[in-house]
Amino acid sequence: MTAPAQPTPFPVSPRTRARRMPERVSHIDAEVYRILDAAMLCHIAYVVEGQPYCTPTIHWRVGDRLYWHGSSASRMLRSQHDQLPVCLTVSHLDGLVLARCGFNHSVNYRAAMCFGTAAAVEDADEKARALHVMLERFYPGRDAALRPITPPELKATSVVGMTIDEASAKVRAKMNADHPEDISVPVWAGVVPVQTVIGEWQPCPHNVPDAHREGLESYAPGARLDEVFTRLAR
Amino acid sequence: MTAPAQPTPFPVSPRTRARRMPERVSHIDAEVYRILDAAMLCHIAYVVEGQPYCTPTIHWRVGDRLYWHGSSASRMLRSQHDQLPVCLTVSHLDGLVLARCGFNHSVNYRAAMCFGTAAAVEDADEKARALHVMLERFYPGRDAALRPITPPELKATSVVGMTIDEASAKVRAKMNADHPEDISVPVWAGVVPVQTVIGEWQPCPHNVPDAHREGLESYAPGARLDEVFTRLAR
Repeated sequence: MTAPAQPTPFPVSPRTRARRMPERVSHIDAEVYRILDAAMLCHIAYVVEGQPYCTPTIHWRVGDRLYWHGSSASRMLRSQHDQLPVCLTVSHLDGLVLARCGFNHSVNYRAAMCFGTAAAVEDADEKARALHVMLERFYPGRDAALRPITPPELKATSVVGMTIDEASAKVRAKMNADHPEDISVPVWAGVVPVQTVIGEWQPCPHNVPDAHREGLESYAPGARLDEVFTRLAR
Repeated sequence: MTAPAQPTPFPVSPRTRARRMPERVSHIDAEVYRILDAAMLCHIAYVVEGQPYCTPTIHWRVGDRLYWHGSSASRMLRSQHDQLPVCLTVSHLDGLVLARCGFNHSVNYRAAMCFGTAAAVEDADEKARALHVMLERFYPGRDAALRPITPPELKATSVVGMTIDEASAKVRAKMNADHPEDISVPVWAGVVPVQTVIGEWQPCPHNVPDAHREGLESYAPGARLDEVFTRLAR
């Protein structure tokens, strides 16, 4: 077992410096990773011929490297063979914050913005390894029980990797914050929490009775998805 | 009451044309709006000095116009006074799709990508109206009970509007899709559904016993957030 790494701040530039509410912002790697690792879905901003695109996709992390994948034919992945600057963002909506004036309404959230240069993983071995890591990260132990990936499938899949150059984490996790002079306004104030949870599994009708379920145990119906992903990322 | 508008496709260009899995893609406005209206959170891609940013924020819709807001000081809003091209994306993760080979693993999702040119709403009346519409969209009837917005608060808030020029909706909502020759692989296959639900309200300790709750009735603990937002958008 290796000792846990010391929390270290990412470098800060005008891209990631907090311009407002600095108390909500951190550049510490562990804070950024905590938000990334609690999610499967991210949104990636990139530019093709001057046009920004915002593409949702699945991501996974190995140290300070982020990975995502997709069909070799997709626009983003094709253009990213050219080493594109990207911003990869993960957000969690945690609650609606009701205040006594419109201005103080807010939401509770956790968001991580990561900046870097993305490039396709071209080496076949490295690509296969990355896809294995993706499966293991979400469903540990499952890959060994699956029908192995074929060379045409591997060829049809692109994997993109990006080392995080800079990143920021931004969190609001508190009650409503009304001005003292508004406290007497007689409206309900407080927080309406929001959680993403796992529902009842829908089995394929072709499943055999003793089908291999390794890697799925964590996804218990009713469990919080962000907590499951966090636990599995450790 | 006006008759509901005929579903109409947005124009299609290389930005929004489906390059793969065209069966998952629609350009019909009603399909795009259904995905947008089921969410509060969106992610916006925009470019400042060649650098793409992906910013999460709250959005709301009036016909084919999208709005978002924030502090007048924020980078995105400042740069958007210059009429920036943006891509605004809303995504819902609906389930994890477990297949019998790695290649056929997937997720169920709904995603809408909207392209347009964003500009700050400069007129004070229009800005105040847009902020009122935002509150009414999420909490109908609440704004009238709040302490009214002050001129300094209005000045400190930027509202950005964007007419949707092009958009696409992309949906996967089905079971695992294994190759017939993989059916005998004895792993559990199927869908693990994911839902975002409302938790137990956390009241401000200063609430009065008969505090005005209009606009909050829909947010019942246990209710699905996307269904509440959809209902309130009608």
